[in-house]
Amino acid sequence: MRLFTDKMAAEKLEDPISERLHARILEISKIGRTENEGAKRMGYSKEESQAKDKVIEWMQEIGMQIRKDGAGNVFGTYQGEDSSKVFMAGSHIDTVPDGGHFDGAAGVLTALEIVTLWHEAGYTPKYDFEVVIFSDEEGSRFSSGLTGSRAFMGLMTEEELDKYRDPDGQTFDEVIRNIGSDRQQFLTAEGPGKQIAMYAEIHIEQAKQLEQKNLPVGIVSGIAGATRTKITFHGAAGHAGSTPMTERKDALVKASEFISTLPGIPKSISQTAVATVGKMSVSPGGVNVIPGEVELVVDARDINEENQSKLIQAVADHAQDIVHDSGITVETDLTTRVTPIPIDPEVIERMEASFKRHDLLPIHLPSGAGHDAMTVGTKFPVTMLFVRSIQGISHNPEEFTHIEDLTQAVKVLKDFFENL
Amino acid sequence: MRLFTDKMAAEKLEDPISERLHARILEISKIGRTENEGAKRMGYSKEESQAKDKVIEWMQEIGMQIRKDGAGNVFGTYQGEDSSKVFMAGSHIDTVPDGGHFDGAAGVLTALEIVTLWHEAGYTPKYDFEVVIFSDEEGSRFSSGLTGSRAFMGLMTEEELDKYRDPDGQTFDEVIRNIGSDRQQFLTAEGPGKQIAMYAEIHIEQAKQLEQKNLPVGIVSGIAGATRTKITFHGAAGHAGSTPMTERKDALVKASEFISTLPGIPKSISQTAVATVGKMSVSPGGVNVIPGEVELVVDARDINEENQSKLIQAVADHAQDIVHDSGITVETDLTTRVTPIPIDPEVIERMEASFKRHDLLPIHLPSGAGHDAMTVGTKFPVTMLFVRSIQGISHNPEEFTHIEDLTQAVKVLKDFFENL
Repeated sequence: MRLFTDKMAAEKLEDPISERLHARILEISKIGRTENEGAKRMGYSKEESQAKDKVIEWMQEIGMQIRKDGAGNVFGTYQGEDSSKVFMAGSHIDTVPDGGHFDGAAGVLTALEIVTLWHEAGYTPKYDFEVVIFSDEEGSRFSSGLTGSRAFMGLMTEEELDKYRDPDGQTFDEVIRNIGSDRQQFLTAEGPGKQIAMYAEIHIEQAKQLEQKNLPVGIVSGIAGATRTKITFHGAAGHAGSTPMTERKDALVKASEFISTLPGIPKSISQTAVATVGKMSVSPGGVNVIPGEVELVVDARDINEENQSKLIQAVADHAQDIVHDSGITVETDLTTRVTPIPIDPEVIERMEASFKRHDLLPIHLPSGAGHDAMTVGTKFPVTMLFVRSIQGISHNPEEFTHIEDLTQAVKVLKDFFENL
Repeated sequence: MRLFTDKMAAEKLEDPISERLHARILEISKIGRTENEGAKRMGYSKEESQAKDKVIEWMQEIGMQIRKDGAGNVFGTYQGEDSSKVFMAGSHIDTVPDGGHFDGAAGVLTALEIVTLWHEAGYTPKYDFEVVIFSDEEGSRFSSGLTGSRAFMGLMTEEELDKYRDPDGQTFDEVIRNIGSDRQQFLTAEGPGKQIAMYAEIHIEQAKQLEQKNLPVGIVSGIAGATRTKITFHGAAGHAGSTPMTERKDALVKASEFISTLPGIPKSISQTAVATVGKMSVSPGGVNVIPGEVELVVDARDINEENQSKLIQAVADHAQDIVHDSGITVETDLTTRVTPIPIDPEVIERMEASFKRHDLLPIHLPSGAGHDAMTVGTKFPVTMLFVRSIQGISHNPEEFTHIEDLTQAVKVLKDFFENL
């Protein structure tokens, strides 16, 4: 029972909400399903469009008004008591090339579920409530990310679009025309028009903390900002046979000393800080040549901006300390820095109250990964819930989340909006 | 004064031998000279053939008999008192793509110089004396090495030749036809026909030990055998943002611990042992993905076979020790093991005597790199002299050796053969 459909068939559904969520996740999973029952719905692909259309059908069934912007983002509006501001909830429906059926889709379908329940109960929310499907969150199309939500928030530039090439070599302009838009409409997709009183996103955890604590849902305490520091170690290349050990300036030995001791750095700063080297290159790269140069990238993150600054500095200092007096030199270059998005403590308090009303322990979790909430959070108040991921597996056909856990998240978030 | 011709023009030549060597090295350097005054004479190229032809001219001027085998190796024979055995000396004349003018050429031209001096003096050596130019020692043509000398010693296989492709995609058969030979003639190039009483090779040191000790020439104490161990660390890939530091199985962190502590291993075994990681790959290789797998190759060498065995074992044990109890696993695979070539202590003693007769300190140096002498040494007694390399630079247009240092090597090796 390792395949997605087998796992879904084995799900125990005790709540009517669960049955509808189960059916809808199965329905969306058929669009772009791969041979090994993974998901392949690249941003701005036919499959992403088909999945959006399916959700639009469900939105229309309960009388929601549909709107699309120039970035292909879909908004379904459910009339509230007051239309001067909006509540918004959603996520994305695209996937990585061999991904799972919960990352993104779970956020869209749970948001829709809240409205569906309101519609059934005849409840009217305080403000207009918009369910959003942001385009191309994964960024598989152009090796970017958060494309739709960044366009929505006016954070995309011509310069970035000029660089885009998709895996088939298509330019951004060619791709965006396929969805009936163009560059101009994309760049002016900006903004909701109205103030967003609260944006909420339910997302699978993509880690194991909830599973280890045996809890279905957790409150995201902040969204970490990714930083990237390119670090280059300069030594001296030489013949691996004729250069005695005592005469070497091996850039890889020093770089390795740096990498092997790097995990101590985030631990010394905060419990939420992380630092990773995922990519490196060794030059000249011959099996019998002492490496003269090593280039690597440190991805370092924290949910707190001050800690993020400390982390960046500590990583650079660590590189300098490692090479001290060794004859090897190092350059560090901070190439990317995304500001972390804190979650307002008052919002967290309100969410905790919703958890308690549903007899759930309100555990706090940092979000290490970026999500659409991060982009919206640059201007508007946001909140996120994480739902337990089996074994923390994500971006993989094995990704799985129990439907009953999603149901818990629906109930809590619905309660949160009803009491906001 | 950084270019080769400027350096040559500035050479102080006090000995007539030096003048001829100087002129001949300059002459050969014109063949395949690159824009930055480096050397480009790939194995089995037009340039390698032209350089061989130039040396053949000089051989014929002093009455040497010329012979070529199916591997393109050139032998110039100078008649000795006894033709039942041969003395042999030489090296190669091909270069790496942007190499220098001494690696190889120095060995061929100094060997020729010895015969030229004998010819001028009317001296007849004990046995026939052959000056050899082995083809494609650098192996730039097919990413191999020692091609000519291995064919000469019958060490090449059909299987290896089948795999060969040169940078232009040509097969071995296509390339070897260009020099007027074919596969069959190449594979049956075997052997000198007669017993080689002694093979001698003068080569630039390609390291800095002689320079540091301010000595022109050194006695090679043994030729290290290269071993290659492929080591694969298996961890678990994961998201660099959402996986807490405490939950990681980062294959690169472990591999780095291995690499940064590797230099301690050869030091613990012998003064001549070396170990290097020059090539590694990190998977999946995304900047925001914790590495799940790292593959690297350890190049480890020693001139002593027993120490070489200890070194191989210690490297594999070290990899296992590093991952112990970490949740990361490691595989080690010894892919290449070349037997080291010891130099007979009696040969070294005789060479020391020649050094002393020329008021030179007979310093011993291990050869970490492979040379044609290593191949010939699998069956016949060999000796090698290293000549001081400026700053140890080699395989580079900056490679340089003072002509007077080569002259010292000529005098010592000539004396050695005269007293053998």
